[in-house]
Formats: sequence, C-alpha cells, structure tokens
Amino acid sequence: MSTLVYLFEEGNRSMKGLLGGKGANLAEMTNLGLPVPPGFTITTAACNLYFKEAEKMSPDLIKQIRIAILSLEEKMNRKFDDHENPLLVSVRSGSVFSMPGMMDTILNLGLNDDSVQSLAKQLNDQRFAYDCYRRLIQMFGEVVKEIPKAKFENALEKLKKAKNVQNDTDLTATDLMALTETFKEIYQQYTKEAFPQQAEDQLLLAVEAVFKSWFNPRAKIYRDLHQISESLGTAVNIQAMVFGNAGETSGTGVAFTRNPATGEKKLFGEFLLNAQGEDVVAGIRTPEPIADLKAKMPAVYQQFEKLAAQLEKHYQDVQDIEFTIENGKLYLLQTRNGKRTAQAAIQIVVDMVNEGLITKEEAILSIDAPLISKLLHPIFDEVNEKKTPLIATGLPASPGAASGKVYFDAVSAKAAAEQGEKVILVRSETSPEDIEGMVVSEAIVTSRGGMTSHAAVVARGMGTCCVAGCGQLIVHEQEKVIFYDQGEIHEGEVISVDGGTGKLYLGEIPTQVAGENPAFKEFLQWLPAFSDLKVRANADTPRDIQTALDFGASGIGLVRTEHMFFEGKRLFNMRKLILAKDFVERKGPLANLLKIQTQDFEAIFRATKEHAVTIRLLDPPLHEFLPKTEDEIVTVAGQMGIRPDQLSARIGELEEVNPMLGHRGCRLAVTYPEIYEMQVEAMIKSAITVSKEGHQITPEIMVPLIGSKKELQVIKASLIKKIEEVLTVERVTLNYTIGTMIEIPRACVTADQIAEEADFFSFGTNDLTQLTYGFSRDDIAKFVGEYLGKGILPQDPFQSLDIEGVGSLIRIAVEKGRQTKPNLKIGVCGEVGGDPASIAFFKEVGLNYVSCSPYRVPIALLACSHATLKA
Amino acid sequence: MSTLVYLFEEGNRSMKGLLGGKGANLAEMTNLGLPVPPGFTITTAACNLYFKEAEKMSPDLIKQIRIAILSLEEKMNRKFDDHENPLLVSVRSGSVFSMPGMMDTILNLGLNDDSVQSLAKQLNDQRFAYDCYRRLIQMFGEVVKEIPKAKFENALEKLKKAKNVQNDTDLTATDLMALTETFKEIYQQYTKEAFPQQAEDQLLLAVEAVFKSWFNPRAKIYRDLHQISESLGTAVNIQAMVFGNAGETSGTGVAFTRNPATGEKKLFGEFLLNAQGEDVVAGIRTPEPIADLKAKMPAVYQQFEKLAAQLEKHYQDVQDIEFTIENGKLYLLQTRNGKRTAQAAIQIVVDMVNEGLITKEEAILSIDAPLISKLLHPIFDEVNEKKTPLIATGLPASPGAASGKVYFDAVSAKAAAEQGEKVILVRSETSPEDIEGMVVSEAIVTSRGGMTSHAAVVARGMGTCCVAGCGQLIVHEQEKVIFYDQGEIHEGEVISVDGGTGKLYLGEIPTQVAGENPAFKEFLQWLPAFSDLKVRANADTPRDIQTALDFGASGIGLVRTEHMFFEGKRLFNMRKLILAKDFVERKGPLANLLKIQTQDFEAIFRATKEHAVTIRLLDPPLHEFLPKTEDEIVTVAGQMGIRPDQLSARIGELEEVNPMLGHRGCRLAVTYPEIYEMQVEAMIKSAITVSKEGHQITPEIMVPLIGSKKELQVIKASLIKKIEEVLTVERVTLNYTIGTMIEIPRACVTADQIAEEADFFSFGTNDLTQLTYGFSRDDIAKFVGEYLGKGILPQDPFQSLDIEGVGSLIRIAVEKGRQTKPNLKIGVCGEVGGDPASIAFFKEVGLNYVSCSPYRVPIALLACSHATLKA
Repeated sequence: MSTLVYLFEEGNRSMKGLLGGKGANLAEMTNLGLPVPPGFTITTAACNLYFKEAEKMSPDLIKQIRIAILSLEEKMNRKFDDHENPLLVSVRSGSVFSMPGMMDTILNLGLNDDSVQSLAKQLNDQRFAYDCYRRLIQMFGEVVKEIPKAKFENALEKLKKAKNVQNDTDLTATDLMALTETFKEIYQQYTKEAFPQQAEDQLLLAVEAVFKSWFNPRAKIYRDLHQISESLGTAVNIQAMVFGNAGETSGTGVAFTRNPATGEKKLFGEFLLNAQGEDVVAGIRTPEPIADLKAKMPAVYQQFEKLAAQLEKHYQDVQDIEFTIENGKLYLLQTRNGKRTAQAAIQIVVDMVNEGLITKEEAILSIDAPLISKLLHPIFDEVNEKKTPLIATGLPASPGAASGKVYFDAVSAKAAAEQGEKVILVRSETSPEDIEGMVVSEAIVTSRGGMTSHAAVVARGMGTCCVAGCGQLIVHEQEKVIFYDQGEIHEGEVISVDGGTGKLYLGEIPTQVAGENPAFKEFLQWLPAFSDLKVRANADTPRDIQTALDFGASGIGLVRTEHMFFEGKRLFNMRKLILAKDFVERKGPLANLLKIQTQDFEAIFRATKEHAVTIRLLDPPLHEFLPKTEDEIVTVAGQMGIRPDQLSARIGELEEVNPMLGHRGCRLAVTYPEIYEMQVEAMIKSAITVSKEGHQITPEIMVPLIGSKKELQVIKASLIKKIEEVLTVERVTLNYTIGTMIEIPRACVTADQIAEEADFFSFGTNDLTQLTYGFSRDDIAKFVGEYLGKGILPQDPFQSLDIEGVGSLIRIAVEKGRQTKPNLKIGVCGEVGGDPASIAFFKEVGLNYVSCSPYRVPIALLACSHATLKA
Repeated sequence: MSTLVYLFEEGNRSMKGLLGGKGANLAEMTNLGLPVPPGFTITTAACNLYFKEAEKMSPDLIKQIRIAILSLEEKMNRKFDDHENPLLVSVRSGSVFSMPGMMDTILNLGLNDDSVQSLAKQLNDQRFAYDCYRRLIQMFGEVVKEIPKAKFENALEKLKKAKNVQNDTDLTATDLMALTETFKEIYQQYTKEAFPQQAEDQLLLAVEAVFKSWFNPRAKIYRDLHQISESLGTAVNIQAMVFGNAGETSGTGVAFTRNPATGEKKLFGEFLLNAQGEDVVAGIRTPEPIADLKAKMPAVYQQFEKLAAQLEKHYQDVQDIEFTIENGKLYLLQTRNGKRTAQAAIQIVVDMVNEGLITKEEAILSIDAPLISKLLHPIFDEVNEKKTPLIATGLPASPGAASGKVYFDAVSAKAAAEQGEKVILVRSETSPEDIEGMVVSEAIVTSRGGMTSHAAVVARGMGTCCVAGCGQLIVHEQEKVIFYDQGEIHEGEVISVDGGTGKLYLGEIPTQVAGENPAFKEFLQWLPAFSDLKVRANADTPRDIQTALDFGASGIGLVRTEHMFFEGKRLFNMRKLILAKDFVERKGPLANLLKIQTQDFEAIFRATKEHAVTIRLLDPPLHEFLPKTEDEIVTVAGQMGIRPDQLSARIGELEEVNPMLGHRGCRLAVTYPEIYEMQVEAMIKSAITVSKEGHQITPEIMVPLIGSKKELQVIKASLIKKIEEVLTVERVTLNYTIGTMIEIPRACVTADQIAEEADFFSFGTNDLTQLTYGFSRDDIAKFVGEYLGKGILPQDPFQSLDIEGVGSLIRIAVEKGRQTKPNLKIGVCGEVGGDPASIAFFKEVGLNYVSCSPYRVPIALLACSHATLKA
C-alpha cells in the first residue's frame, strides 16, 4: 500500500514530482516552522492511479484522505460538519508545472446549511457567511458538476434588478440567504440531486474534479504547446481555511521581500484589515502600504519582517508572499519567487551577492540573458502604448522604442534632424548610401528585408531601434508616402516604433529609459571571469568600438572594411577604380583610397588600443558600389567623366544572376589583387603609426569567402609580399596574423587543409546558413512564414543557429581545423554570435570567442557565462 | 658493386623502372627470341649515381660498359675501331615515361676517319658512308658539345650554293667527303679539340650527354607539368647498327599488326627496299604497301607475319613495329602498342575477345572512356578544318561537329529549317522558349553560360553539338549580328561549330561520321555485366528515353517535369495558374494542366516500359514562366486578359535577388501544395493506364531541394493523400516510391533523418556544387578563368566532381542515409553522372546508379565497368 496522501509536515520542496509545485512548497514552509495553515497533499501518483482504474477513487485513497482529515481536525480543533466549530478547507490543484486550464481553487469547502450559521456566529457576520456559502455552491457547481456559469450569474443579476442595486456588495445578508436558496435550486435542477450537505462528500467530489481537469481540452493544448508530459498527473492540496475578515485584528495582504520595480531592499506590498484576499482583488477598498502595518500591528509586522527575511534566505531569492492575519495570528498562505523588472533583477542579485546571500555564480545563473536587452534600450510607456493605434507589425530587428517624424531619404532626414526634429527614416530597404540618414534617425523602418538585412545589421550596430521587413507597408520614397491597411502616412507625420516587438504606432508615445545603472555595471564586470568563451564585437567605427569595449567586449571580432568605401570621396575613388580600364588607370584611385584607408585604420587602432582586432578585407561584389537607377547613372557618369551608356555597360558587365554566389569576397582578390594589397598596406602602415604612439597593435587580417586551401595560399602570398615590403621600407617589425572566414560549406569539410594556411578561423554564420540551407536571406520572406507556421523551420535560422544542419558543418570544421592545428583560434562573427541558444552550442564545440553587435555584448557575455557554468 | 649495365638478354619488360621503357621493351623482345640487333642498357640508377657523384662517371660504370661492348663485339663479330668490320652503334635515351626534351638518338656512333672507309666498302656506297659520318659529327657536336646547329647548317648551305644544287641528295660522294672535313673543322673551332676518333671516347661522351639531358630546361618543364619525379633518372640504350640500305636484299619499314583506322585484322604498313628509316621519313621515294613484300621477299614476309602475330599475342594488343632487313635478314628495331582511331580500337578489342586473345575484362579496361564519344558524334575533316579561319573558342558544351547558316531566334531558325536549310542557332543565352529553334538546329552557340547552362544541358540531351559561353562573341539578337574580334557575322552566313573543342569557324567544313558499328554495339552489351553501378539517363521526352535505352541505359534517373510547362497551351495554363488570385482561380488552369500532364506521362511510361523511371516534381522558381521584356509583357498580358501593369506587378512580386537560393523546388510545394498534387495525380493516373496496357509501371517520385526531414514529411503526406485518393477512385493498387534529391548541404549532414522519410536518394550535383562552393554557375564565368589559370581550381567542378569538397558531403550523406536504411537506393543525376573520374568516386562510396544525358550513357557504362573492375 503506497502513500497517496502526504501531510504538509511529511513533504519538502524536492518532492515536486509527487506533490506538485504548490504542495511541495507548502510542505517546505511547514517544515521551516512557518505559520502555514495545516493541510495535506494528494499525490500525482494518486491522480495517475485514478485514471488507470477507470476514473474511480480507490478505497485505499479514500481511507488515506480520511486519516489526513482526522489529523487536520485535531490540529485545528474543528471538525467536518461540526455545529460549533466546523472545519472549512480550500481545495487547489497543483501540478509540477504551473498550468492554466486546470481547475484552480474551491474555497470554504465544508460549508452547508448548518455550518454556515456557525460561521456567521463565529465571525459575527451573517452576510459574509452566506456570501461564502453561495460562492461555494456556484464554484462547486461550475467546476465539479459543470453547471454553466451563466445560470448562476443570471440569478444574481435578476436579484440585483429586483432589489434595484448596482453592486453585489449592496446586497444584504437576507438577500444573500435568498440567493443561496436560489443557487441550491439551480444545482438541484441541473444535477437532479441536492447540493451535498456532507463535507466529506463535497471534498471527494472536488478532488475528483481536480483529477479530471488534468485532461480537459485547455490543459491538453497547453501541455502540447509546452511539451509537458501527460504522464505527470496533478496533485491536490487541501488546506484549512483561515479568515482575514474575522474582525479588526484580522487582515490579509501580499508583500515582496524587495521592491520588484527597483530592487530596493525594503518590504514592498499592501494589506487590508478585516478582509479576505478577494476584497483586495475587487478593488473596492484601497489597501494600505505594508509599512503602515508596523504602526497598526507592530508585533505581527515584526514577525512578518522576520519570516520574510527567513524565506528569502531559504529560497535565495526575492519572495512574493501572501499572508492572512486571523485574530492577531499571522498565517503564510503562499510564497514564490517574485516577478521583477530587469532593473530590479540586476539590483537584487548584486545586492544579494554583496550581502553574502548568494554566490556570483548563482547570481549570474539566475538572470535570463534576454532580460539584459531591456536595460539597454528605452521602452514605451505601457499605458500610453495600449491607447495608441497600431499601424502594422514587422520584424523586431533592433530593440528600443522611439517616436518621431517620418522621412523617406537620407537628405531630408538629415536636414530635419539639423532643425532639431526627431526623425524616423522609412524606406523599402536601405543601402549603404542611406548611412547618413540612418545615423541621425531615432528609428529605422523598412518594408523589405529580414533580420539580417542592411537596415537591421546597421541599426543593431548603432543601437538604433529598427523594424525591418514590414510587408504590410507599401513605401513610395519618390512620392513620400506610406500606404498601410487603414490609410496613408506622409512625410513629417509622427509615428512610434517598437524595435523590441516590431510594432508601429500612429502618433507619439512617451518612452522610459532604464538609464545608467551601477549595479548593472558591476554585474557585467563579474561575467568574463566565469566564461570560457570571450566576447568580441562587430564594429566598424571608433564610436562603435568604444561602445563595445565599454560594455565589456574583450576585443573586436569583425571590422567590415566595405563601409569605408561608401561615402563621398571614398565612393568616388572606388567607382574610379571599378571603371578603370587596366592596372595603370587603377593606380590613381588606389593611391587615393590608400590614404583614406590609412586614416581610417589609424582611428580604429586608436580606439581598439591593445585589444584584439580582426579586420575583414573587402567582401561585397563590385556592382554594389555603382548606381542603380537611370537618374543616378546619369549623375555618376557626369562625376566620372564618362558617357552614361559607358557606365551602364560596365554595370551590365558586373551584373549577376545570383550576386550572393558571385564575384565577391576573396574572389575579387584573385582577379584584382591590388585592392587587398592596398588594404593591407593601409592596415600595416597605420598599425605601425599607432604602435609608435604606445599601443602595440597586432592586426588580425581576415580573408572572406575562402573555399579552398589553394585559394587562401594564393591570396596570402600576395598579402605577405606587400606587408613585408612595407615593413622593410619602414624598418620595423610588427606582429600580424592572417586568417579566414569559414562561411562556405566547402571550407568546413576541407578545414584541415585550410588550417594549414590560416592563423585563425572565424565562422560567418550568415553566409554559411544561406549556403547550407540554400536560402537567400534577401528572398526568404516569400516563404519563411509558411515554413515557421507549418513547423518545418523551428525558428528563423538567421536569428538562432540551426544546430542540426549548420551546426554539423561547424562541428566538422572545428574538428578538422584542430586536427591540423590543435590550438587554432576559432571564433564566430555572424549575427547569431549574440544569441544565447547559439552561444551554448559554440561553447560545446569549443570556440574561443563569439563576436556580435556592440549592443548585444552584455547579453553575449551573460550567455557565455551561463554556457560555461552549466557545462 | 651493383649492376649498372644490363645486356638486352638480361632484362624484361617488368624492369621499366631500372631500364626505362625502351630498354625494358628491347630486353623483352630479345628474350622472346625475336631478331633484335643486340645491345645493352645503362640503368637509371647509373644516371642517378652520375649526378650524386658530381657528374662523373665512376670507374665501375666505365668498366661495366666496356664489358658490355666486348659482349656486343663478340655477338656481331665486329669491333670498335676495327679496320675490316667496325662495330657501329646507336645511342638512345630511355626514361620510364616517354619524355620530349630529352636527347633522342645518335646513330652510326663508332664511325671515324678510318671506319667510314670500311663502311663504304662493305655497303659499296661511299656517298652513303660519308653522309653517315658527317651526320654523326653534326649530331654528336650538337648534343654532346652543344655546338649551335646553325654552324653546321650554314656550311651545308654554302656548299650547296657553291655546287649550285637544290637538295642534299644532289651532293656527290666527293662533296660529302669535303663537307665531313668542314664539319670536323667546325667541331675543332668550337671545342678546341679534334672530333674523337676512338669509338669508346665517342660512346662515353654520348652517354654523359644523355644523362645531362635529364636536367635540361625543356625536360624539367615537362616533368613539372606532368608531375614526373626528378628522382627517376634516365636510362641509356646502346644497340648495334643494322643497315637497310646494304643492297637490294635490304630494306626498312613500319607495320601495324591490324589496320589502325578500321581495326581490320590484316597487316597494315609500308616498306622501302635498299633504304634506311630516314629515307621513308624524307618522302623522296614512295614506300610500297607491306603486302607487296610478300612477292618480293616471300620468306622474310612470312617470318614478319609470324613475328607480328607473336608480338600481338605477347603484348595482347595491336603492335606498331619498326623493322629493317639487312642482306635478307630481318631485324625488329622497336615494337609498341599501335595508336588507332576510336572505331579501330573498338573493332580490335571485340575481334581479339572473339579470337580468344584477350578477355572481355581486358578489352573493357583497354578502352579509354572519353574515346567513346568520338564514335557517337560527327567530327570535322582534319585537313579542311586546318584551312578554315577560326572565329573564336568557347566551352565544348556538347560534342559533335556541324556547319550551317546562322539564325538568331527560334522562329527564324524553324522557318529556315523548314525550307531545308541547315541551321545554327546563335544566342547570348537560351531559355526554354527557344526549344523549338534548338530542336531544328545542327548546332547551338551561346556567348554566355557555362557547361551546365540551359543550352548545354538541352543540347547534350538531344545529342546536338553545342559551344556555350563563347565570351569573345557579342551577339545582338535584335539586330541579328554577331561581333567578333576580326569582324561581324549576319543572319544566313555559314559557320562551322566543333562542340568537342569549342571552336567556331567561318565557312563550311565537311564532317565525317563513325556511323553504325556492330562491334561497338557488341562492346556496349558486355558492359553491364562488369559493373556494380547501373547507368540511367536524364531524359524528358519519349525520343530521349528511347535513345538512352538503345545505348544500354538500365532506366531513367531523371525526368524533369518543368519542360512540360514551357510550350504553347501548357505555358498559357501555367501562367494562368501563377497569376491566379486564390485557390479558386487556380482550379481551372490546374485541371487543364492535369489533362496535359497525364498525356505526357502516358507517353513517357510507354517509352520506359518496365524500366525504372524517376520523375522529379516541379523545380524552377515561378518567375521563369513569366515574360521578361516589355514587349513580351504586353503580349502576354493581352493573352491573360489583364493589364500589363498588373502583370508587371506580379512579376515584380516574384522577382528574387538570388533566384538560385529562392522560392523554388519543394518550397513551392509548401506554399502551393496543389501543383505537386496535380503532378502526382497525373503521374499515378497514367501509370495505371499504361500498366493496364501490359507494362507494370512503378513510378519513383522525386522531390527536389529538400533541406530537412520535416519538409519532406509535410510534402510527402500531401502527395500520399492525393495518390491514395486516386487509387481508391480507380480501385487499383500500384507500387510507387517517394524519394528526394540530395542537393543542399543541409540535406547531406542531416541525411540520417531525411532517410527516415525517403525511399531513395538522388544526388543533384549541380546545385550541390553551387552551394558547397558558393558558386553560381550563371556567374562563375567572371572569374573561373583566373581560378583555373592560377591552379586554384584543378578543373571546372561542374564538369568533374570536386571530390574533396562536394565529395565529402556526398560521403557523409551516403553514410548517414544508410545508417538509417542500410539498403537505401542512392543515385546521382547531376551532370557529372557521365564523367569517368566522378564515376570512380561514386563507385567507391557505394552508389547504386549514375544518371546522365542519353549521349553520355555509353561513356558512363564504360566508366562504371572500369571503376568496378579496378576496385
């Protein structure tokens, strides 16, 4: 005969599987000696047995329940169905995971026609007693007998009409006595039997109802959705009722052990005297702050303070405690870890570490990585957000929230910003020529492109809020108008953009900023010590580099050099270079670019100082640097001093069917070696200059898009030749390394060979994902919705690494690379470098670092620590 | 003391490493008892020793040479420097691999001022003797002492001028005696020493010269190019001279044991009486056919016939034999496997198998796979080809040769063909809409696109000659003109196209066709029995299917269904389908397409009969079915009954940045399941119809572009549902299988999971190569030249599988697939399915079949047999 019923004092919190979450917690509190109303738990095993035995409660189970009730009666000095001191209990479900859809609570079980009067006498409140009774009948009727709620509600409404009152509370004791009779009649009509007058009958039926609710449709759907096993079953908790409304020395309340909004170490909550929990919820009386209890019931307050501290210490976390005072005696009804804001979460763990309550490891593991992003960006005021009309929803491409006036091109946006306007740049998609407009904008919105589109990548890099790929918008840049389902928006109109949710609103919404937070800074400083993986940042400008280092990045994992060619004089020279007929014509623009790049790299090295810095050589295809529209072609041809048809012809030559798979990356270096040679010359010269200023620079030169050892060999030879030339002329030595992106499947499967030539590897997960899946991230929008909807893709593989597919290739590349060079440094610099789930995988396969956009550095740092601590 | 010199009778053909190819062969013949002039070989080891010992011949080597000379003197009854009977020898190099750039031959070594007169006496020909002597001095001077050839040639020219004669042969004995003196003076002037009069001195110097020639620049370059190891060294062959010009019972000739042009089993060759080899080469006297020797010297002829048969039997191959007759005595100077035409090669091995000379395995292994293609396609007459001006060279996309008039579009081409013109279709690139023009053309030429472009694939499928990607041409279809380096070509002008070399010529060139060949058919029939791999064909029409089966294909590995949508009514309905607003509008065109497809599949199944047939569901993106130019859009919009701007808008919606990575293949089936459902309905209905006609059809349904198990699962479920509906309605059962293309890297690394859903795999190496390398085959032309030139790519990976990269993924997929299903049927249906090197790899990894275009089936059959026999 197994134990199917546990008294609270017989269990503990490790018995969650058998007693459910709530039962285990009540047992734990009881055994801590806390004043918990006594009770017992019917186990999940009993529930499973019930279904195994064709939904019948076994005699054994009933016997164990009776024994538990006897024990309860003894402790409370009350009895089921007693005239003087009737025992009343609550019945609550309690599965292992908290689950909506399950039967929740039946209060006041044990009341009947007789004991309702005893209760009225005891509490000296007939009205309340009958109110409890009619509620019991309704609750019981609904959940145990499935009587439609409407039947009871209609009767109540009818009564209120007859009595000509507005609120339930305006009904008198007599009214409620009559209502109780009506409810009993409804019960009789619907069930063809009288409302049970024996407390034990009520109890056993209620327990069965809890069991059955385990299989109700809502619970099933929830389980399927969250992959909770059906075989777990639910437990049932039976607990003696206590009454906060037993007079002026009674009361009820809820309190957090620390402030859940700020994290401040001070009790935070509220209470009502002579009231039950329901009264607090109903909102008719205004509760008082918990601090006021000190004056009103000093002993109780002191006891509560002590218990709160004890609970916090025991659970090593902020507690959210429900309590009731019955005739001056304090009872704790529930305690759980308190929900809190991101800011509070950090403040609390930092304080707790400093108080010696928890270790740093525990503190780190208790903070969810995504929570961090809420500390870095403004968010909308919730109340105002709800009141503002929604325009459309796109992809949440870069977090933050902002309001501003709509502009459609960089020039207008810049002009407006210079006038002091808050600007939001809206375009079909952005290109590098929009950079100046993007820099001045509060937010960026595009109607096309995904999470890794130009707009998204640049916005994340700058920490600017961005909604991308919002297909519900039709954006006409020329006509300066956005069409959306309900209307149109013109230049200068105000919209609000939530980059954390992808939502766009019409009109302004005030924002809140978490702001500077010393606790957060302290927390970030702890992380590197607990992580095997270093965190670097993808950053192209001194400003971005500084942001990343401030957030705790150990270095820069990706400087994209193509951004250096996209503005004014640079672009002019780049175009001259592309349009040159031969090597001789290329010399002039190359010399100009060399000068500009040297200055760029000096600024970059001055920002990175001694930190590691990996610079990627030119990656995009050449046609990206040339104009696209007819008008642009005419303008640019003028600048270049050639005829528009000549320019068009060259553009035609460079055009590609699949540019993603075309003549780009290191393939350019094979056909035009002088571009990379110019880049390394600039890089080495500036590294020498900055090294002489006192910061020893060791550039890590990264070649993109390598597919074979021989390819890297050929390019590396030309780079080294140029570098050694520079060093010879300058008569200095300088350490540098030459490595490669691993972003082509072929590079993964031949990584052992490539490692012979490479000083380091850095996975480019964006391109690697495109090629491994055969997905173009520019085109995936056409079908990714259906793929996610039908569950073919569990997630967007450009946001979180596809561990089975892309991950397999990464695993192969790491193994093969380290076969050749056991200490090969390997990192990742794709977008998923900042994704916690992906980081756990990168830790598992043994990468040395991840690199992500500056504003994701804190999240990545935390995710890396988690991965290391969990390993 | 190791043996550095071997007499011919001491060696054999297995000693090629030590004796070189020629030496081993002479030894072999000697030991067969054949009448070979005696001699000996100085080993390659001796050569290596020479270089090891600072280019000095060791006393030991000199001693061994002297002993060998003594033996030679004895056998010939002649002596070095003898007054009466001087021993004359030839000295020839002989490395393991025949190598241009090495010193070739010194004849008549041993002649000096004294022995030249003995020779004159013996041959009774003073003129000839002095001619030999002056040639020895020149040859010796050039190769041993590096005296410039011009010095000797100038002296000769001067003499001829003085004597007022045109030809060397017009010089008298006296003239040549004088010339000999002049040559000796030249020798003296240049070397500051007299021409050596001791035969042994001549010999040792000549041997050293052969050794040294191993390291001359031309030989070095050749070795580097062909990756021949420097450490092999060269051997030196010394052989007694025999003279075919010793009178009317002497002579010299060359003969093949069988006809090298036709393979006929009959001696084939020619001879000259009283002549040396040189006289045959000089072409002054006309040699007689070998058959005439029978009448002139019956005994010698009979002996030669016998020896020829003996050699053929011994070497198990046709022999190309050089012989000399000295005073009625037959000598064999050399034998080697005879070069032959493709037709002869096949005829010979088939005859030899039937004669019992060789086994079928030997016959199969002796035929190079690429040779086969020469039997399948016409080739240009060589002499005329050389005389015709070359226009340009493109990619040899589909073999064959043809001349015809240039046309630039399908309509004009068709019209001209109907008038009986021979037509060549020339376009920038072809698209499915050009099909009708391609069908009527003798050859197809494009200026863009690679070996796997539309033009190339379709042409190979039809067996039509094609040159693709000829970038030197600028083709203006509208203006009907081709610009090339030297001029322009207009509609109706005649050009000639060689699809085997990629060359285009201006004007007509006659062609030769190997034609029907019973031996070839017999040969092909042998092959399947010797191959573990089956050969199927990629064929989309009943005609192509028949061609493939006639060539011995075991079935059809790829029926592409997209070609079924590209003509007339089909295209109209396909466009209606694409332009439909919703499922309801799609119903009409779907019903029409169902009817058409059902007819198509019936025709296909009637052609395949019981042979295996794999049908791929629709693969290309939808925009391929829509018009491209403004004019076409206007026309098609009219046909569709919509406005051009509506059509343009839909085209815009479907446009993709990287169509290769876009919304195509099975991704269409996820968003529009009804297309694949229509296709399987048509397929199953027609399989039922044809099965009822007596051919049991078991369709293999192939889903393209699968990237994950779940994707295949979702699509397969919808296909099976539709199929079972059809079978239920028709009240029949039918076997069918559903498998997948493996053409995405992700499918390779998750093949274990995909195999759970797939009945078979078929590798699509074109797409797999594109994705593994990140190469677009439409764009690769921009840099592939440089990549091949710099050795970064050893070959075009779309023509021969990249075994290291793409092969690794294939290996992984095969292993993983068979982990799940040990007997999983796996094939390959990409272009490389017909490439011998790739086939060897496919055999190694254990594929069940390869599938290639019909005209490559014979090559694939042979390559599969080779791979199996060699394993």
